[in-house]
Amino acid sequence: MDMKKLALEKHLEWHGKIEVVSRCRVTNSEELSVAYTPGVAQPCLEIQKTPESSFELTRRSNLVAVISDGTAVLGLGDIGPEAAMPVMEGKAVLLKEFGGVDAVPLCLDSKDVDELVRAVEMLAPSFGGINLEDISAPRCFEVERRLKEKLSIPVFHDDQHGTAIVVSAALINALKLAGKRFEDVTIVINGAGAAGIAIAKHLLSFDAGNVILCDKGGIVYDGAPYINEAQQTMTEVTNRSKLTGTLADAMQGADVFIGVSRPNMVTAEMVKSMAPKPIVFAMANPIPEIMPDDAKKADAFIVGTGRSDFPNQVNNVLAFPGIFKGALAAGATDITEGMKRAASLAIASVLSEDELSPERVLPDPFDKRVAIQVAEAVKEAAMQEGVVREALKKE
Amino acid sequence: MDMKKLALEKHLEWHGKIEVVSRCRVTNSEELSVAYTPGVAQPCLEIQKTPESSFELTRRSNLVAVISDGTAVLGLGDIGPEAAMPVMEGKAVLLKEFGGVDAVPLCLDSKDVDELVRAVEMLAPSFGGINLEDISAPRCFEVERRLKEKLSIPVFHDDQHGTAIVVSAALINALKLAGKRFEDVTIVINGAGAAGIAIAKHLLSFDAGNVILCDKGGIVYDGAPYINEAQQTMTEVTNRSKLTGTLADAMQGADVFIGVSRPNMVTAEMVKSMAPKPIVFAMANPIPEIMPDDAKKADAFIVGTGRSDFPNQVNNVLAFPGIFKGALAAGATDITEGMKRAASLAIASVLSEDELSPERVLPDPFDKRVAIQVAEAVKEAAMQEGVVREALKKE
Repeated sequence: MDMKKLALEKHLEWHGKIEVVSRCRVTNSEELSVAYTPGVAQPCLEIQKTPESSFELTRRSNLVAVISDGTAVLGLGDIGPEAAMPVMEGKAVLLKEFGGVDAVPLCLDSKDVDELVRAVEMLAPSFGGINLEDISAPRCFEVERRLKEKLSIPVFHDDQHGTAIVVSAALINALKLAGKRFEDVTIVINGAGAAGIAIAKHLLSFDAGNVILCDKGGIVYDGAPYINEAQQTMTEVTNRSKLTGTLADAMQGADVFIGVSRPNMVTAEMVKSMAPKPIVFAMANPIPEIMPDDAKKADAFIVGTGRSDFPNQVNNVLAFPGIFKGALAAGATDITEGMKRAASLAIASVLSEDELSPERVLPDPFDKRVAIQVAEAVKEAAMQEGVVREALKKE
Repeated sequence: MDMKKLALEKHLEWHGKIEVVSRCRVTNSEELSVAYTPGVAQPCLEIQKTPESSFELTRRSNLVAVISDGTAVLGLGDIGPEAAMPVMEGKAVLLKEFGGVDAVPLCLDSKDVDELVRAVEMLAPSFGGINLEDISAPRCFEVERRLKEKLSIPVFHDDQHGTAIVVSAALINALKLAGKRFEDVTIVINGAGAAGIAIAKHLLSFDAGNVILCDKGGIVYDGAPYINEAQQTMTEVTNRSKLTGTLADAMQGADVFIGVSRPNMVTAEMVKSMAPKPIVFAMANPIPEIMPDDAKKADAFIVGTGRSDFPNQVNNVLAFPGIFKGALAAGATDITEGMKRAASLAIASVLSEDELSPERVLPDPFDKRVAIQVAEAVKEAAMQEGVVREALKKE
């Protein structure tokens, strides 16, 4: 059976990929009076007295809301809140299965930034963290920024940061194999939307020397007539050599290509024009910017894609379950650059030197070590930075 | 151990009374590609094409949001969204355990009616039904009214209608035992808030002859200086004999007393002043308007309370799990008076003539027949009234 038919049939059979179950028994009136009235008044009063205890007396400390407005779902675009739900349920499944984190998918029927921010703010007391998902750029930047300011629980836009964290982890290992350092390399990112800009920022936090963003109009440079506000801001920290021109121009002599754009954007000639031992992460879905075989034939040293049927799959599932697991375990109030860097380093370090090869710069998504090690690193980073709830801060 | 201590300990041990689990396996990359990308695009596209299919391809058709703003929680009042959560989790547990319905508790951080309505409206595409809970009067009336107008999924404020449905079921059986008819009796309701008014309306839908509402100022009559807008509206359909005076005045010669007010409001003398075979439902929690023993000594024929340690417990759990189970099964777009009446009749008819007695006018909350029979009756009523989604309407 082909994938499309199989996926539809399975979704009909599952009738929902998640389910809410009870953790307590209510089979007689004594049990009922403990879990519900009159007993339930006690935890209520305790939380009223000590708000912090809401994390212990309810599911809150293990509960994340997966929130979307359905405007940028997969490659499908603005399909609306109802149609976005299968993806959000899937995300909730992965948070549970990979990170042990409970997640409630909530697709909101509004595209208005103010309304989205206010709704999530109103929902926040019920959750320990917020995972934003598939909200279109540039609205996603403002939604995330304002929520991070307002809320005292972690807010994470996976489309931006999840991808950035995993591709950076891959690049840490790839550069190690190539014998190069972040400081010295030129990295071209094609696709200067939410993901591309987040990748650029995250790589710069690893002291990447020269990051060049490209978009439909070509290289993103200071004052380029075709760039938007977010891209203009990025010119302050990217494109050190003030390059102008096409993607092909940018790639000449570059060490790394990262694609979060569209199929077949990169030719064999463009890979050949890169510096020795070129590293190519072509993550357009389902068809990469260049097919791995073609890139390899053009002497690419390391090639990764977003697909599971090629080596080096850059898959967000390596990051977000462990990140939320760790942030919740720490009682984090935010997800900082330091925590995201810790996640990248943890993912990169899962594979030992022996396991590492040009065909394997990232661990398998089903490698049980990943979420555990990411969670530990993220928790540690949160505690070191002191971005945890007051009651959990060390003396 | 006393109840307070036990309840707190159990809540700490449970660490959340509900949990979100996965209904599908993702243990290898083939399974992952069906439940998540790229396979998940198919159900998304299908829902975009046929919105109705969101009920089949996601959890929606079995999923209810339990929504509160934490302003009128149990007898505790306005304790806020965090502190309200143990009650809402408990509600979710009961929906699952008694009705097989999945429920997500959401406590919203706003007391503004417009904001609450808008937030629930934005959340609606993710759910098959909305259970409003512990929202203070009179805001709860407007929130419910506006949501019922706006949404095409069932909206149900349990504090109003749950109590009304169950006490009416109890009264159907009590009147049968007393040999009286709804048309002929005088029913005094003490407490003219959300529950009291809902009870009055629901009893009138059973053709109750004379319903008299009382509140802190005494009998609610047309133009009484102490009554609010909702109570004033009720004077059009209640207090047929234009009575004025105190609760004691109202109870003289009345057949039925229903209390949703405060402890110890009713004396033995007041019960003695009632018509023969008086029926007393004293549901103030935890201490009733009159203790059952005292009412019985004053010749009450049937006495019920809200408590599980006395006979005839009027417990909402007899109603809401079956109501949502039935409404969701029907694909209902609303919960109508007819559906609520069907629920009362179904609860009343669970006990056979042989099982019925003055000490037993309601089934046990743990009687498995209840939710099943309520669900069937509610589903039937929804289909008969045609308040079901277009795709489910019979030719």
